[in-house]
Order: sequence, then C-alpha cells, then structure tokens
Amino acid sequence: MIDLNQFKIDCANVRKQSPLTHCITNYVAMEINANALLAIGASPLMSFAPEEMDEIVRISNALVINIGCLDRHEIEGMKAAAEAAVKYGKPWVLDPVGAGASRLRTETALELIKEWHPTVIRGNASEIMVLAGSSIVSKGVDSNNSSSDALDGAKALAAITGSVVSISGATDYITDGYRVETICNGHPIMSKVTAMGCTASALTGAFAAVSRSPFEAALHAMAVMGVAGDIAAAKCKGAGSMGVEFIDALSNFDAEANAKLIRQ
Amino acid sequence: MIDLNQFKIDCANVRKQSPLTHCITNYVAMEINANALLAIGASPLMSFAPEEMDEIVRISNALVINIGCLDRHEIEGMKAAAEAAVKYGKPWVLDPVGAGASRLRTETALELIKEWHPTVIRGNASEIMVLAGSSIVSKGVDSNNSSSDALDGAKALAAITGSVVSISGATDYITDGYRVETICNGHPIMSKVTAMGCTASALTGAFAAVSRSPFEAALHAMAVMGVAGDIAAAKCKGAGSMGVEFIDALSNFDAEANAKLIRQ
Amino acid sequence: MIDLNQFKIDCANVRKQSPLTHCITNYVAMEINANALLAIGASPLMSFAPEEMDEIVRISNALVINIGCLDRHEIEGMKAAAEAAVKYGKPWVLDPVGAGASRLRTETALELIKEWHPTVIRGNASEIMVLAGSSIVSKGVDSNNSSSDALDGAKALAAITGSVVSISGATDYITDGYRVETICNGHPIMSKVTAMGCTASALTGAFAAVSRSPFEAALHAMAVMGVAGDIAAAKCKGAGSMGVEFIDALSNFDAEANAKLIRQ
Repeated sequence: MIDLNQFKIDCANVRKQSPLTHCITNYVAMEINANALLAIGASPLMSFAPEEMDEIVRISNALVINIGCLDRHEIEGMKAAAEAAVKYGKPWVLDPVGAGASRLRTETALELIKEWHPTVIRGNASEIMVLAGSSIVSKGVDSNNSSSDALDGAKALAAITGSVVSISGATDYITDGYRVETICNGHPIMSKVTAMGCTASALTGAFAAVSRSPFEAALHAMAVMGVAGDIAAAKCKGAGSMGVEFIDALSNFDAEANAKLIRQ
Repeated sequence: MIDLNQFKIDCANVRKQSPLTHCITNYVAMEINANALLAIGASPLMSFAPEEMDEIVRISNALVINIGCLDRHEIEGMKAAAEAAVKYGKPWVLDPVGAGASRLRTETALELIKEWHPTVIRGNASEIMVLAGSSIVSKGVDSNNSSSDALDGAKALAAITGSVVSISGATDYITDGYRVETICNGHPIMSKVTAMGCTASALTGAFAAVSRSPFEAALHAMAVMGVAGDIAAAKCKGAGSMGVEFIDALSNFDAEANAKLIRQ
Repeated sequence: MIDLNQFKIDCANVRKQSPLTHCITNYVAMEINANALLAIGASPLMSFAPEEMDEIVRISNALVINIGCLDRHEIEGMKAAAEAAVKYGKPWVLDPVGAGASRLRTETALELIKEWHPTVIRGNASEIMVLAGSSIVSKGVDSNNSSSDALDGAKALAAITGSVVSISGATDYITDGYRVETICNGHPIMSKVTAMGCTASALTGAFAAVSRSPFEAALHAMAVMGVAGDIAAAKCKGAGSMGVEFIDALSNFDAEANAKLIRQ
C-alpha cells in the first residue's frame, strides 16, 4: 500500500523544490510533457544536443530519456546524457517507446539499460515484455498486451538490472523485483490522448528528484497520473478536452484531498 | 456523390481495425496528428529514422509523408519509407507542404511522386498547382489560391501519376483524373488552427488502410474533416478552443448521425 | 507611454497584411507559436533546413530565431537564415532560450548577435543578464531573476548592439538603450504554460514586419501578450485551459477595446 503521508510529502516537494527535469523526448510529447511538468510544479528543460549534455545534466535534478523519435544524432545525445547522469549521480528514467517495433529501438533501449542503469524503466506492457526477453509481436507504440501479462517479466527485469520497473496500463504495476505495488486509477480515454505514457515518465523523473526512493517516486508519479486522469475523464467531453482537463487537474492537484482517491 | 453506406463502413472499420498509421510529419503537426488519429480510432506512429523505416513500414497499415519540416536526414527517412511502402504494398499519402516555397520542397515532392507513386497526394491549392506545373508565386505554407483554381491541374496530375489528388479548401476536391467529387463542409476558422491540412493527410492515410479504394479513402477522410470542423466551429469560442473542439468532434464522431451533415 | 493609436494601427496591420513570419524555433514551442501567429492574423512558417533558408527568408516578412532546441544542424540553419535576413533587409528577432545554461547556448546567442545584429533580442531576465555579461547562475530555461534585475544589462546590451531588447517577466521592459517602456499586464499562471516566452518572440517578429519601428514592434507585441494573458487568466480553470484561453484571447483580440486594458 502507498504511504499516503509520504505521497503528500513528495507532491509538496515537487512544488517546493521545482526540480529541473531534463527530458530528451520525442517531438510528439515535448509540449504536453513540458506542460505536465510545469503543472505539477517542476521545471522542464528539453534538450538533446550531445555538446551540451554534460552541462545540462549537471545543473538538472533528474533526466528522462524517451526513445520515441530516435535518430542517430538523438541517440548520441541520449548516451551522453545517460553518461552524465551516472557521473553526477542524478536519477534518470528510461521510457523505451516502441521497443519491439524495430531493432533500433530494442537495441537502443537495451544498450542504455546495460551501460547506464536507469533508476526507473517506465513502459507499457509490450515494451517491458520485449526488454524482459519475450518474443512478442509488437504493434507500433501502443501495447498489444495487458499490464498484468508483463508483471513477471518486469520483476525479472528489475531484479537483473537494479532498476525500478513501472508498467502503465488499466492497472499500473511498480516493482523493484521484490515488492510489487499497483495503482488502479485512470480511465480508458487516457489512451486516446497521445503521449500519456511519455507524460508518466516525465512525472516519474520529477518525483525521482525529490523522493526518498526510486520505488516511491515511480509509485507516486503513477498515482498522480491516475487520479488526475480520473478527475479529467469525469469533466471532459472527448479526447481533445481530455488533454486540457488533464493538465488542469495536474495544476490543481491537491495532494491532501486527492490522496483519498488513490485506488490500489 | 458520396456513398453514405460505404462512408459509414469505412468509419466503422477505422475504429474496428485501428490501422497503424505511420507518419513522417513536421514537428508542428505531430501532436495534433497523433491525437486526431487516436480520436478516429487509428493507431499513430511517428518515426523518421532511416534505419528503422523498413521494419516500421512493414508492420504499419499506411504511411503518411509530410514534407513540412524538411532536412537532409528526414528526406533520407522519407525515401526509405516510400521505398518500403512500395515493397510491402502499403498505401501511402504525400502531403507536399510548402511546395513552391523553395526548390528543396518542390523537388523533394516531385521526386517522391516520380519514384514511389503515392496512393494519394493531398495538398492545398497552391501546392497542387505547383506540382501540376503552374508557375505561381508561393506564399509560404498557406495557399494563395482557391481550391477551384487547382482543379484542372489536379486532374492532370492524377491522370499522369495514377495518384488520387485531394485538394483542401473552402470546397475540397478529390479526383482520380476522371471522377471529381466535392466536399463543401468545414469553416474558415479551421484555417486559423495550425496543421489542419496535415491532419487531413493523416486521416487520409488511416482511411486508405481500410477503404476499398484510394478515391473513397480520400473522399471519406475529407468528409470527416469537414463535418468535424462544422461541429467544432459551432461550439468553439476562438481559434484555441477550435483545436480542442475539433479533436472532441473526431472522438465523438458518429458516422450514422453525422453522415447526414455532409454537403456536396 | 504606449501610443494607443499606433498600437491599434499595428494590430490592424498584422491582420490586414498577414506577415509571413518564419520561425526557427524549438520543438516544444512550434505548435503553440504557429497557433499564436495564426490567431493574431499572421502567417507562420516553420523551417530550419539550411538548403532553403535563403529562399524562405526572401519571401518572408520577418524571421524569428529561438535557440531552445539547439543542435549542429539547426545552428547551421539559424546562421544561414540570419545571413539571409541581413541580405534581404528583413527584421529578425532572437530568443536566446537557456543562454547561460550551457556554453553552446551562450556562445550561439552571442555569435548570432555579433555577426547578424538582431532587430530585437527578447528573453527572460536571466538570459538577458547572461548576454549582457553577468556571471549569474542559470537554472535551465526558466529565469531565476526578476525582470528589473536585468534592466541595466538590457540597456547596455541595446546600446552596444543596436538591437531593441525586450525582457519578459512580471513587468516587461522594452529598451533601445535610451528609452525604456514597461508593460505590467499578464498573470503568474502564464509561467505555468510552456513556450509563452517563445510566443512573445514569435509575436514580436510578426509586429516587426508591420511596425514603423522595432521599438514599437517589441512594445506592442508584449502589450498583446500581456492583455491576452489577463483575459485568459480570468477565464481559465488551470494551466491546461490557460493555454487554450490564451489562443482564444489572441484570436478575439479587439485592439480598439483591449487597448484600454494595457497597464504601464
């Protein structure tokens, strides 16, 4: 079970400390991720030039690497950033978007994991299953599998890598290989708004900057996502207003009142 | 005249089959195109790395190439993707954004047409006129011409290339060089929301994946665009809420009820 | 004090002349900047390929260079565009996003200033202070300093470079090194919407294309930003709807009525 007191402390700390959260993310997600980070009180920075990765990571409080729009040059930036995160001891989150859809994606994700040990790996079921070694058929960047299908693989992946693994889906699972926590909030319409998974990864980065453990950071980020998703889904009139209401819900997030809405 | 029964079948099939629609598109349009595709029931994937084009196109159901943000590296990805679309027999849509505004754009669009024969070419009047050989003065990415000005050129372009040509404007024209169909839906405020043309191309791709003919795919996509535009324009309070209402209208699109609103 | 009559003339001219405003900007800001430009009546064009910069700048009415997402290739495009702006006598605006956060950003901004003399430099306090030679500690792309801290540096920077300098913040300062004007409109929630600074730069570009002086262009753009921000802040329910209401306010901007709301 989530420690509600610690959840409130982490939410308050994101607003108070405003962690500089450096995202190397895909171009689809950039604006919504920046807005989601601002809405919860963090300070986003989007940059991928290899030349400035060392300096940017050094002044940042967390790094998020999302492989949604890969190219040679971005991969170079990702590696330089991950290297710097290890060097400066900054927590970093890997979002292996579309792992399984191409060798380039699968291999890039695996290399980042092996060489620079992400603090948290956050993906959908298909992506986590691919990284855990399953030979599943990928369908682009959306998952073909339910999050529970990926739980065993996630536990194994966490145990081998030392990363916390966070699977998003109708039920979210967060595991460090030993413990497993679930978040049952959220609404199917969230899957009709692009980059919601990427946003979960961005928030996980912000929480990792202030939380006392990566496991709690991943858990609290998914709790915020799910509760804000519930609130927004109840107010929206379709997938367009869902995106707007979701950011409104994040910016109005009241950890004291909203903590009661977490379903586990 | 549009076959309303077939229109409803195509709309239902987009939701049922959720075609994986691979877009190489400009960075302005990426988020809205992903959201528009999700809203009509398709599954978007945005990628342009040449290294993964063959694999991504192979698992996709349609490809959309939009030359809005050209650079050397993206052009390499576009060519690899078009090559793969031909190889795997996948329908593909070309959006020649800004053709006429620079030699790079005009020549890239013409090369893609000549070498890899798009299933559908969808552009505004100025772009289609440039591709059809007119020496018009381009003004950036917005059209200086009305869609009717481009109809003769569109018919000739379709006849020569074998592509269906779809011109968006106050009246949309869809032609295969022989037949011409029109859609008269839509509202001027749509031109105040960026990437609406790009969105039309993205939806054309999704419809091309499920439709029995490219001509119907292009026609049905423009019908959905126009009707959703009408619905959204009646509800919005300005250009910002227009974008939100438009995605809401797509996600709430009821082919049974909305088909009656199509004006031809 | 702002000349309200001239303000109304400039606002009307943006709608009437619809200046083609070419933006080389970061991927976070592209969509919102394009929508903001469309909303005030301008015509946006987003392009950065070095190969087409000469042609694109030649047909454009203004250029905006925003260094938010730098990489080698984009820098090459920026230099080619600035070169063309000088060659064709087009006004151009520099937004030195994150200057001070990395050497790459600081040096690129300084080189663009020294070599191609921007018409207007628009940044937040920290960025302007860095360019004016202060050794301040940068925190990413958000400002650590209040705009008044940067005023002396801005005046010196303007006097040395010949550029108008526009600092955004709770109070906006616009100076040509001799005159200083202020705009006190706007609301803190604007800082919770990403790319608002970038949008100010984009609008400054559009106004520079129609205004009788760069100083008035910068001033009038900040007045529109601030008043639209006030209007949107009064209507929004959070940071998400703030972004939507802001574009609505721009598209409904009534220079006659809204000019009265300007606070100086």
